[in-house]
Amino acid sequence: MPAATCIASGRYEQMPCMDFQSCFSVWNKLTPRQQNWVLEQLQKRQVKKGTVLHNGSEDCTGLLLIKSGQLRAYMLSKEGREITLYRLFDRDLCLLSASCVMKGIQFDVTVKAEKDTEFWVIPAEVYRQLMEQSAAVANYTNEIMSARFSEVMWLMEQVLWRSMDRRMAAFLLEEAAIESTGRLNITHETIANHMGTHREVVTRMLRYFQGEGMVKLSRGVIELLDEQKLTALRDL
Amino acid sequence: MPAATCIASGRYEQMPCMDFQSCFSVWNKLTPRQQNWVLEQLQKRQVKKGTVLHNGSEDCTGLLLIKSGQLRAYMLSKEGREITLYRLFDRDLCLLSASCVMKGIQFDVTVKAEKDTEFWVIPAEVYRQLMEQSAAVANYTNEIMSARFSEVMWLMEQVLWRSMDRRMAAFLLEEAAIESTGRLNITHETIANHMGTHREVVTRMLRYFQGEGMVKLSRGVIELLDEQKLTALRDL
Repeated sequence: MPAATCIASGRYEQMPCMDFQSCFSVWNKLTPRQQNWVLEQLQKRQVKKGTVLHNGSEDCTGLLLIKSGQLRAYMLSKEGREITLYRLFDRDLCLLSASCVMKGIQFDVTVKAEKDTEFWVIPAEVYRQLMEQSAAVANYTNEIMSARFSEVMWLMEQVLWRSMDRRMAAFLLEEAAIESTGRLNITHETIANHMGTHREVVTRMLRYFQGEGMVKLSRGVIELLDEQKLTALRDL
Repeated sequence: MPAATCIASGRYEQMPCMDFQSCFSVWNKLTPRQQNWVLEQLQKRQVKKGTVLHNGSEDCTGLLLIKSGQLRAYMLSKEGREITLYRLFDRDLCLLSASCVMKGIQFDVTVKAEKDTEFWVIPAEVYRQLMEQSAAVANYTNEIMSARFSEVMWLMEQVLWRSMDRRMAAFLLEEAAIESTGRLNITHETIANHMGTHREVVTRMLRYFQGEGMVKLSRGVIELLDEQKLTALRDL
């Protein structure tokens, strides 16, 4: 779902968020008092590409609302293996960076900036109190949580039942849509970390794709030559 | 987490729920008016083992509270393959059977009775209105959703990074804990459907376990001979 849904809804091409109030969906459902309190407590931050914003259960920053930029939420195994769970773009909310105030959450994710990112933080404790006071905020939280849960379920289906070639085609097309280019600057190692697999598997698959005329490989670059063929493979 | 957590918390050995009020955690946070309304709308149902209670997006029964019995929530691929996402026992709530009123849920699960089961149903529309009116109900819903999300994340980790032998050991030990017996009446096909794999893989693995003296296989029965060795393998 995510890949197709995101492209269809133009999620990658969203406009940056100009002010917090207009991008925080439940703003108008807060009381004036709650609104003032949130504005008082709100923090604005800017981070460079590569910054880790949230690291499992080690920290509990709060709820992040992205003004502009791109975050990646991923799972990390004890052995250091990774898989991307979902990406967050302009106007998206990062909920799991406030997981300490979400009762029932018993897993860790890591959140890292994939591009320079500007965002607002509602401190975790402030958000917890808002949820407690306001059914609207609680239901909104639920909606975001359900959306992330849905993305993970989609991923689970892919990992379990979809062959690696179709997943690779989907990944390359998604990446091209995010970057708005068919010329991807990405290493095989990075792709392996996104897909939860080994670098060798990625290299072998990309060479096969090259043999089929779908991509052209050069140092640090993958060029998509035949998006139609890749799409057909993805949607098989 | 689930396997260990469940056993540790004695979740399998919970007492049946005597009345709805005492098992529905947020009952005391409802207004008298809401309480009366819920009691008026509440339905009580009994189903036989094997009954499908919820089938993806085809129906939207509502929220189920289990009085006694056992449900299995699983994902079904287009090709008919299955994987167990989680099980529900006495006093547990089944939320995804009301997924139509959970905004943001974009996936289907199937819920089937694994034992004869008695439960209460809060119709979906009633529950939706309760969530809208009450921050307590909305936050409680969030907590349940987060718990199920956590179980799926745990499963994802298993599927991605844990070898089949360790997953099999974990499955057999969990099953023995649920059934309170080391003599399991279960087919290889059923195990394959729980674990999201093929029957042949299960058979091969069980034969290997038998060779190692961990289990004894006979028609339709798997006997756990060395729980200590199985536990060591699981916790490796």
